[in-house]
Amino acid sequence: MKKKKSQREEVAELKVSKSRDFSEWYNQVVQKAGLADYAPISGCMIIRPYGFAVWEKIQGWLDRELKRTGVENAYFPIFIPERFLKRESEHFEGFVPEVAWIEKMDENEERYALRPTSETIMYDAYSKWIRSWRDLPLRINQWNNIVRWEVKATRLFLRTREFLWQEGHTVHSTGKECEEEVLLRAEQYKKLVETRLAIPVVIGKKSKSETFAGALYTIALEALMPDGKGLQMGTSHNLGQHFAKVFGIRFLDRDGEKKHAWQTSWGLSTRTIGALAMVHGDDKGLVLPPRIAPIQVIIIPIYDNKTKGKVLKEGGKVRRKLEGKFEVHLDDRDSYSPGWKFNEWELKGVPVRLEIGPKDIRKKQVVLVRRDNGVKKPVKEKGLVKELEKTLEAVQENLFSKARSFLNANTKYAKNFRELERLIKNRKMARAYWCGSEKCEGKIKEKTGATIRCIKEESAKKEGKCADCGKQSKTIAYFAKAY
Amino acid sequence: MKKKKSQREEVAELKVSKSRDFSEWYNQVVQKAGLADYAPISGCMIIRPYGFAVWEKIQGWLDRELKRTGVENAYFPIFIPERFLKRESEHFEGFVPEVAWIEKMDENEERYALRPTSETIMYDAYSKWIRSWRDLPLRINQWNNIVRWEVKATRLFLRTREFLWQEGHTVHSTGKECEEEVLLRAEQYKKLVETRLAIPVVIGKKSKSETFAGALYTIALEALMPDGKGLQMGTSHNLGQHFAKVFGIRFLDRDGEKKHAWQTSWGLSTRTIGALAMVHGDDKGLVLPPRIAPIQVIIIPIYDNKTKGKVLKEGGKVRRKLEGKFEVHLDDRDSYSPGWKFNEWELKGVPVRLEIGPKDIRKKQVVLVRRDNGVKKPVKEKGLVKELEKTLEAVQENLFSKARSFLNANTKYAKNFRELERLIKNRKMARAYWCGSEKCEGKIKEKTGATIRCIKEESAKKEGKCADCGKQSKTIAYFAKAY
Repeated sequence: MKKKKSQREEVAELKVSKSRDFSEWYNQVVQKAGLADYAPISGCMIIRPYGFAVWEKIQGWLDRELKRTGVENAYFPIFIPERFLKRESEHFEGFVPEVAWIEKMDENEERYALRPTSETIMYDAYSKWIRSWRDLPLRINQWNNIVRWEVKATRLFLRTREFLWQEGHTVHSTGKECEEEVLLRAEQYKKLVETRLAIPVVIGKKSKSETFAGALYTIALEALMPDGKGLQMGTSHNLGQHFAKVFGIRFLDRDGEKKHAWQTSWGLSTRTIGALAMVHGDDKGLVLPPRIAPIQVIIIPIYDNKTKGKVLKEGGKVRRKLEGKFEVHLDDRDSYSPGWKFNEWELKGVPVRLEIGPKDIRKKQVVLVRRDNGVKKPVKEKGLVKELEKTLEAVQENLFSKARSFLNANTKYAKNFRELERLIKNRKMARAYWCGSEKCEGKIKEKTGATIRCIKEESAKKEGKCADCGKQSKTIAYFAKAY
Repeated sequence: MKKKKSQREEVAELKVSKSRDFSEWYNQVVQKAGLADYAPISGCMIIRPYGFAVWEKIQGWLDRELKRTGVENAYFPIFIPERFLKRESEHFEGFVPEVAWIEKMDENEERYALRPTSETIMYDAYSKWIRSWRDLPLRINQWNNIVRWEVKATRLFLRTREFLWQEGHTVHSTGKECEEEVLLRAEQYKKLVETRLAIPVVIGKKSKSETFAGALYTIALEALMPDGKGLQMGTSHNLGQHFAKVFGIRFLDRDGEKKHAWQTSWGLSTRTIGALAMVHGDDKGLVLPPRIAPIQVIIIPIYDNKTKGKVLKEGGKVRRKLEGKFEVHLDDRDSYSPGWKFNEWELKGVPVRLEIGPKDIRKKQVVLVRRDNGVKKPVKEKGLVKELEKTLEAVQENLFSKARSFLNANTKYAKNFRELERLIKNRKMARAYWCGSEKCEGKIKEKTGATIRCIKEESAKKEGKCADCGKQSKTIAYFAKAY
């Protein structure tokens, strides 16, 4: 199909290739596909309707999953009194450089921060609401906006001073329940990220230096981006009794004793949308996995003045046939050429395009084009629903399998520092034994720029030498530069 | 049924009657039913899970309705540069006393407000996105948090420094389309409020002094609370070309000319939840209309140690039968007595209670109790689904019809100032002719405390004398004190 020139054609094409300038490619794809735009506030972004529709897909799936497993939604104020943040000094210090404060309206009022996360304000309320074991477990989630006044430059979705996320905060009567909860939420994130976003992750604990301020330990999901950098897709924290002691969350247990409660918190943010663009996109733009795509099937009618009525009518018929089964849209705008539309919907990453022209109508078929591999084939209208179901599943699987191959091919074992350094330099994720000391971790970071994305304990008999100091260890760490 | 004492019984009962101390009753019902709680930040609230579940019901219905009529969701920053707010001076002055600002992190940065509403930041983006008639109409909605630093005391849901709402902002190529849009959104709000929340409203324009800062005119939905005060349930503004001129939103029209666009904005907030509590509640607590109730049917098993297994099993059977058809919950907590549970679920306003005891199982029945009128009757399990459908419809209708009777009985015509003054004193809403002058409006406000909630133009031949100055007029104004 020859592409007809249009006065707006420039909007629907990228000016740079993914392999040549990844960073510029990412900026263009996010903006031109209509996911997000820079805001006139330094370090902030506007999530545009198409990007927000992706977020709604993520929300829809995760929200159902959380509710199915006992979580309720609520809303706490964006304002956090300074004295709350200070109550847990480790937590406070972890956020200090990024906290934004509001100007005092009244000298008598205290100083309020904009939430960098909501542990403190939620746990103050929890301490009032929880009295007995009968009030537990308590599982509350918030979908809200978070403010962290980052100094580094904006990267749309990845590093902005305000972003959207969900934060879940649970309270339990035993530490064991806590451990199960932390794992459950990490598993739900993994399922979301791998089976919906089609992005494979490495899952493991954070090292102490990367653990959430105030937590016993943090489980993180780490994905590998095409430029060799790690991107954290979600975290789940076991808070132990730490915050419960600071905020006085106590409950009367079945045995008649007052005890401090056990807690977890976990979050997943709009930065996952950035990962989605980076992992699957190509030189034509976004490539969205069908299960997260706001539009799964785009119908493009191809007509001239003579055939217009007939083709549009047939397009409408096909749309009605697919509605309710797929997220389908008919692009019947008269002011754009088919070629321009092909470009635009490819840029937006719609998984499947259906073309309908006069010849197709005669043959009772449509032409189906896959976004992920460009494969084009005619499909009889009669078998269209079945064929689409099969194709969308195939696209979903192909995207995941390609991303997994990339992750596997770019995650390499380093048996010593020299190998680790070379891997990082070559934009790989390095698997290496690590003795567990902050000294070795710090030295590696200083010399290679890579941080420990997560760690895994080896099974019983395996062990090896720390890539830095050479000490025997059972801990495998995943090293990469990070967003 | 005799109510068994429990150590927690105090939580599940109100300590004041609605008619004796309405304000205290409202505070208690909102907190004890678990809708909301005061936050440790002066003037702020926490929306608790049960209250948030009501908000999700409102969101769910309205979001579907908006999307069905061409609206897309997006997210704009909470930060608004001071220069943006100042660009439209009338708009800015309307919000100045309530604007909260963040402390500057860096001397070179400009001053940022927390959004009191998002016209300015959205329209700056619109001016970049809109080029041609082909980009119109543009209809974007946000579900977000809003900050207005009110000085008056907090009223949960009704007056807090932060609240949740949706704000829709549309752009059109003609003024006529704008007028239709403003009406469409007002009608959708009316449908939501009347057919879901079961609260009848008076709908009409605002007087100039109550019109949104920067709008041509504002259409408001006004409900009457049991204490005779008006409560604004939603507003829809025709912005004309005012903001388009200030922010430079221009488009190339079909005729080849560059024109300023036409705009609307409209919003509905969590304060509707406050109205819900006030309008339908009684001395036992909330009474929720079935179509907005997070739980429509609560099943309470009644058993002793001997019958426990059998009754709980039957309760589970009934729940499974109703699931998917109704929002149903089985309260199988062993640590609370049936009487305590009756109180708690009445306090939470669940429309229908089903009691199941050993006798009921023998008779293959459940006992159905309506929350709105207390009527109790046995229902054969076989016909339960049908009976529930009928009952929930009847409860919904009864609540609306009671509220409408109250509105009608308490909205009275005042032919002169003396009558108007007496009506307001007696906590009525007064309908009166008004000449349209701000002088008369101001005088009435000063002397009676009542403001014009909305105005309606009389049909062709009708007219009457302004309640203040006596001048002939075709404009009917609705006067009431307001929240």
